[in-house]
Amino acid sequence: MNPSAAILIIGNEILSGRTQDVNVQFIAQRLAGLGIKLQEVRVVPDVPCRIVSAVNELRAAYDMLFTTGGIGPTHDDITSECVAAAFGVPWEIHEETDLAMKAVMGKRYNAARQRMATMPRGAVPIKNEASIAPGFSISNVHVMAGVPRIMQAMMLALEPRLPRGERIEMRAVHGMGVMEGAIAEGLCAIQARFPQLDLGSYPFKRNGAWGVALVAKGTDLPAMEEAARQATALIAAQGVDPVQGEPAE
Amino acid sequence: MNPSAAILIIGNEILSGRTQDVNVQFIAQRLAGLGIKLQEVRVVPDVPCRIVSAVNELRAAYDMLFTTGGIGPTHDDITSECVAAAFGVPWEIHEETDLAMKAVMGKRYNAARQRMATMPRGAVPIKNEASIAPGFSISNVHVMAGVPRIMQAMMLALEPRLPRGERIEMRAVHGMGVMEGAIAEGLCAIQARFPQLDLGSYPFKRNGAWGVALVAKGTDLPAMEEAARQATALIAAQGVDPVQGEPAE
Repeated sequence: MNPSAAILIIGNEILSGRTQDVNVQFIAQRLAGLGIKLQEVRVVPDVPCRIVSAVNELRAAYDMLFTTGGIGPTHDDITSECVAAAFGVPWEIHEETDLAMKAVMGKRYNAARQRMATMPRGAVPIKNEASIAPGFSISNVHVMAGVPRIMQAMMLALEPRLPRGERIEMRAVHGMGVMEGAIAEGLCAIQARFPQLDLGSYPFKRNGAWGVALVAKGTDLPAMEEAARQATALIAAQGVDPVQGEPAE
Repeated sequence: MNPSAAILIIGNEILSGRTQDVNVQFIAQRLAGLGIKLQEVRVVPDVPCRIVSAVNELRAAYDMLFTTGGIGPTHDDITSECVAAAFGVPWEIHEETDLAMKAVMGKRYNAARQRMATMPRGAVPIKNEASIAPGFSISNVHVMAGVPRIMQAMMLALEPRLPRGERIEMRAVHGMGVMEGAIAEGLCAIQARFPQLDLGSYPFKRNGAWGVALVAKGTDLPAMEEAARQATALIAAQGVDPVQGEPAE
């Protein structure tokens, strides 16, 4: 069995359209490599009751929850307090982090910055190479920064602590000039033969022409190879040269 | 009052990390221009019970719901049936769409393609310039394609039918070399003076150096201007030249 996961993005800046999220794809790809199945993503605004209820719903529904955003020093950074509220534990200064940040920042270590050394009781810091202020884990909830390069460093630092499942493999084949509607029936038949795999069909446009990519995902490698062979034949039957892999950007 | 909205992305390809979503930002920016407040985004897999329950939760919680993905001709395109199930209405051929698609596609109009002319009873098509197959609206739920250029055409075609609110304005000012922790207290004081606005603080890195962008959002224009003036002064007080607007990419 692959463990399951959700991502919660605390992000007014995503909901307003100001910022293009890039954290979901990074985390999703890392989780796939660990054999962890990402089952849901939510984006909620920087509003305490929304964050608390989303944390509690998602940590109960999945084996683990990753949050991004809202752990900086400013008034709109409220994720850490909200996670403490969700767990019903005090939000208090984490001594080791407090001392480490004070040592590095000296006189610049003010009340706002000390918020970043304040965590739910029982939290374990996610120390990382990009930031003095760590993320943290509490139970199955992993709280990370929203700034992509800091989030990425936290995710990489966190990975050794995560449970793993069988690696989820992906095989893709694509063909230019193939229309989804023409191969839908054949693809459905392949899916029926391999119920243990997820088969997807994704149209794309390159240089003004449409094509379609067929993608198989799963942990059963022999089935993957055979499904990929059949998908390749399905494209070839359209009188098109199948190309292995994803279409180039 | 600004009407509220949610986005539901039906997207195995987002959850697997295969695809970088770009639909949320497009819809979010269009909604901001219409004065509609985006309050939540969810990504769920192509699994019927997950889609049905997310549609029902989100259409009840917000004034409108936009879905993207899962309305093509293949076996993994199940959004349309699931929306019918969520509303408890039959999923049936939409005559006008069926005739229009048949007229354009001729002999290529097969059973798989006819799925794209099949809608929940009572749905109103979202005809668009990018695709013969339309999206559709049923009550406050607007069902659109996942392929970005088709989704964008559907969104633009849909906009005249949407309720509107007061336009949500945004003002930004940024400063290189300003650290969030140094201005957190001052920014909190500005937020306290303008409770009708949302003030956010977003660190960024350019050419190897950190800066911070302060962003005010709201519908009260005089308050916006005054808050922006105070945020500009806050950056200047750090001995840094404030620059109006967002930092360039």
